[in-house]
Amino acid sequence: MKSIGRCRAHTNIALIKYWGKRNEELFLPMNSSLSLTLDAFYTDTEVTLDSTLDSDVFFLDNVKQGDKETAKITNFLNLFRNRANIETKACIKSYNHVPTAAGLASSASAFSALAGATNQATGLNLDLKTLSTLARQGSGSATRSIYGGFVEWFMGESDLSESSFAIPVDDATWDIGMIVIAVNTGRKKLSSRVGMKQTIDTSPFYSSWVETATKDIEKIKKAISEKDFITLGEITESNGMKMHATMLGAFPPISYWEPDSVKAIQKVKEIRDMGLPCYVTMDAGPNVKVLCKRSDMIEIENKLLEDFTRDQIIPSSVGEGIKLLSQDEWNY
Amino acid sequence: MKSIGRCRAHTNIALIKYWGKRNEELFLPMNSSLSLTLDAFYTDTEVTLDSTLDSDVFFLDNVKQGDKETAKITNFLNLFRNRANIETKACIKSYNHVPTAAGLASSASAFSALAGATNQATGLNLDLKTLSTLARQGSGSATRSIYGGFVEWFMGESDLSESSFAIPVDDATWDIGMIVIAVNTGRKKLSSRVGMKQTIDTSPFYSSWVETATKDIEKIKKAISEKDFITLGEITESNGMKMHATMLGAFPPISYWEPDSVKAIQKVKEIRDMGLPCYVTMDAGPNVKVLCKRSDMIEIENKLLEDFTRDQIIPSSVGEGIKLLSQDEWNY
Repeated sequence: MKSIGRCRAHTNIALIKYWGKRNEELFLPMNSSLSLTLDAFYTDTEVTLDSTLDSDVFFLDNVKQGDKETAKITNFLNLFRNRANIETKACIKSYNHVPTAAGLASSASAFSALAGATNQATGLNLDLKTLSTLARQGSGSATRSIYGGFVEWFMGESDLSESSFAIPVDDATWDIGMIVIAVNTGRKKLSSRVGMKQTIDTSPFYSSWVETATKDIEKIKKAISEKDFITLGEITESNGMKMHATMLGAFPPISYWEPDSVKAIQKVKEIRDMGLPCYVTMDAGPNVKVLCKRSDMIEIENKLLEDFTRDQIIPSSVGEGIKLLSQDEWNY
Repeated sequence: MKSIGRCRAHTNIALIKYWGKRNEELFLPMNSSLSLTLDAFYTDTEVTLDSTLDSDVFFLDNVKQGDKETAKITNFLNLFRNRANIETKACIKSYNHVPTAAGLASSASAFSALAGATNQATGLNLDLKTLSTLARQGSGSATRSIYGGFVEWFMGESDLSESSFAIPVDDATWDIGMIVIAVNTGRKKLSSRVGMKQTIDTSPFYSSWVETATKDIEKIKKAISEKDFITLGEITESNGMKMHATMLGAFPPISYWEPDSVKAIQKVKEIRDMGLPCYVTMDAGPNVKVLCKRSDMIEIENKLLEDFTRDQIIPSSVGEGIKLLSQDEWNY
């Protein structure tokens, strides 16, 4: 007996960052965060529950994955199987859609798509809010990729898993876009998980970070509701820098920046000073993301091309939330 | 009637940083700091009190300076003239000794040398502690350049000028050296004064910075007393990064880093990972200073030459405190 689910989820970039868990097992964050879902980067995932299988099998971009990778998927599927009271094993096929050389494959879209596909395959018919809490337990940022546009992930209360989920804030169908500047697409040297832990344990700035991020959430939601792009951008840039500052305060200091990250930051400032509003944000890696108006994207791309190559610059419009894919839409 | 004083003072690099004043007029700092005086960078200054002059005249590297620069010198000399109860004007000649292309001319050596020369010219015969409090009122970091080796600048109490002065901590005649990597020698875009003010006013990390710097002072003095180079280096690197983190937390974010600053930081880490202990520190500019063992300096320079040019790399041994210069020693 086979039961199939297929789902697409887009990645998201946090404008108010998530950096640190208060509960590592449940992926409960230290502060609420807010993101923008991107159209250009997504994961398609098919989950086939198959009673003839002895164990889960996981293919990523047609490559069979090893025990360690598969175990993480198995643990995640168990969250659903336990609810459905089944033990059927599954074959999972995932395809990451990331423009060549971007190297931005994200666990956000991966676990969000997996949640959507598993929900369908198990027939659990869980609502999006519940899917969001489950996606969170695969990867924190996946909590937000359930929805499109601007999304807020509530930190929730104490150790209550069901209290920490995302909600859509605004569909961002106004003049919003993002350009990714791919600085280095290699694997990062320090995982987010380890970097977060070291920051919480040693940075004297950590508690101030949590406080300031909490304030930034309120400010950015106000800017979004007023469609005030300048304030949105200023808060985004400031919050990202404060996250990196908090890491830099760790002992030993943590920095994901590379020389070209600084070059990109300086270039964006230069473009802004010329009158085109655009703002940077960075995550746990050297790549630089530029929040801008969609209507300015081509002009900004042309400016960036003065210092970066064509394949380093990846524009994206705003992405939608998870979407089930029919057999016809499954082009693999 | 003429009365002449001549003095040499070396620059210093803070290992525990000074970033922010609690009293802007008196240059009273928010926290104590600790520095290393460098031999390679110094200022020679001659002060000639001359009753035939109608106003102060100031020459820097043989170039007569304008009203604004001269007014700052006049105000500083008045601190001494008021004590000596004289109004005689002065001719001041200063020479900055900074290896070509380093662009590291510092107000630290400038005001420290000026304090020493003026002390001699006025015949006030002030002690070093008093000279240190006076040098402070020209430029905060000048407080420390009165002495050689490792020097602590006490933050002092409330608004009491005489409570904030430097003392020598250790002559650093053990295995200590510093290499300056000159990344960009142009004028910085944001002055320290303005950068400090903006950081105090807007960075959510500022109060934690003051607390952590205060703890770092105690830790680094212990490392110095135990001649524990590794701990000395680790605290130095961590403290400098925390200062830059505090700035990055300002609104809008402040960063003095350039792409090559990151290249230098990464290179130093690479050299350290190869087994040569060396640690970076940075001030309000893009240049990178490398604290290392004097006995490792040539080997570290050779590694740095893989990525930087010869004239970007300036080694220095430890410098001494201010020193009066006789007419014979005045080779200008």
